[in-house]
Amino acid sequence: MSDSLEIRPYLPEDEAAIGDLFLAIVAKGEEFAFPADFTHEQAVQYWGRSAHVTYVALRNGEFVGSYYLRANHGGNGDHICNGGYMVVDAARGQGIATALGHHSIAEATRLGYQAMVFNVVVAANKPAVYLWQKLGFRIVGEIPSAFRHPTKGLVSTYVMHRELER
Amino acid sequence: MSDSLEIRPYLPEDEAAIGDLFLAIVAKGEEFAFPADFTHEQAVQYWGRSAHVTYVALRNGEFVGSYYLRANHGGNGDHICNGGYMVVDAARGQGIATALGHHSIAEATRLGYQAMVFNVVVAANKPAVYLWQKLGFRIVGEIPSAFRHPTKGLVSTYVMHRELER
Repeated sequence: MSDSLEIRPYLPEDEAAIGDLFLAIVAKGEEFAFPADFTHEQAVQYWGRSAHVTYVALRNGEFVGSYYLRANHGGNGDHICNGGYMVVDAARGQGIATALGHHSIAEATRLGYQAMVFNVVVAANKPAVYLWQKLGFRIVGEIPSAFRHPTKGLVSTYVMHRELER
Repeated sequence: MSDSLEIRPYLPEDEAAIGDLFLAIVAKGEEFAFPADFTHEQAVQYWGRSAHVTYVALRNGEFVGSYYLRANHGGNGDHICNGGYMVVDAARGQGIATALGHHSIAEATRLGYQAMVFNVVVAANKPAVYLWQKLGFRIVGEIPSAFRHPTKGLVSTYVMHRELER
């Protein structure tokens, strides 16, 4: 296929799309653990402004997803980064998340982080768990009944971790 | 011994002591993963004002420690609470943390949380790990090399979890 996928640093003009997608995922209730009354402004602040870096994916020039990286903790824990990822519904299952994953691993390595960790991977989100395992992440923790899935009820969340090449 | 230990809700007059103790623990670098330039104001905001509840322990009227509870995540993850605990150096090893632990478990139950989780327990902090296990917490995750201990080098952090009685 001749689709072009560009992954570039986030710009202020991406704020509307990032906030909209974030709130849509929160509203769906299956992947993100954020308050239902989280605002568009809070979403943009969290994802786009307060992160260490934020990238967006454009397919044929159209916004289809985004990821951010930030230190998972401060001080003596700031050598490990956390990442968040989202893909618009219409572009799922087409390799966008995989591309964002590869890009983010390279970027985290370039930024000097020693490892990446995801604190809240909903265990029922099997495509995500599978993707991260394929990209070298291991499940290093499981918090039982930590997420109220809208159709599956109480499900675990995983902590997933991947070391980075030095 | 005739010492009296009182655990009561945090008041604005406790802010100085809470901020001072928090920053002292950050500076020591063995237990908390917060930036070295975290300010007193940020510490008070984090520990005393933005938490769901904050309690302080007074021994014979003198501040000896504190804990907070807050939802560990928002939205579909807000039925589990996170807690933070600190005890002044001069009062360590005297049961203050145990008393705060018991008090916080009862308080979290009263507030309706279904479980408690600690995201960052430094594995080298053996008294803390032992205390939480004694109070019914299990290690449900281990993030390798997640904390740069000032004397022990890179050490793991544990995720510890305890269900609460309904």
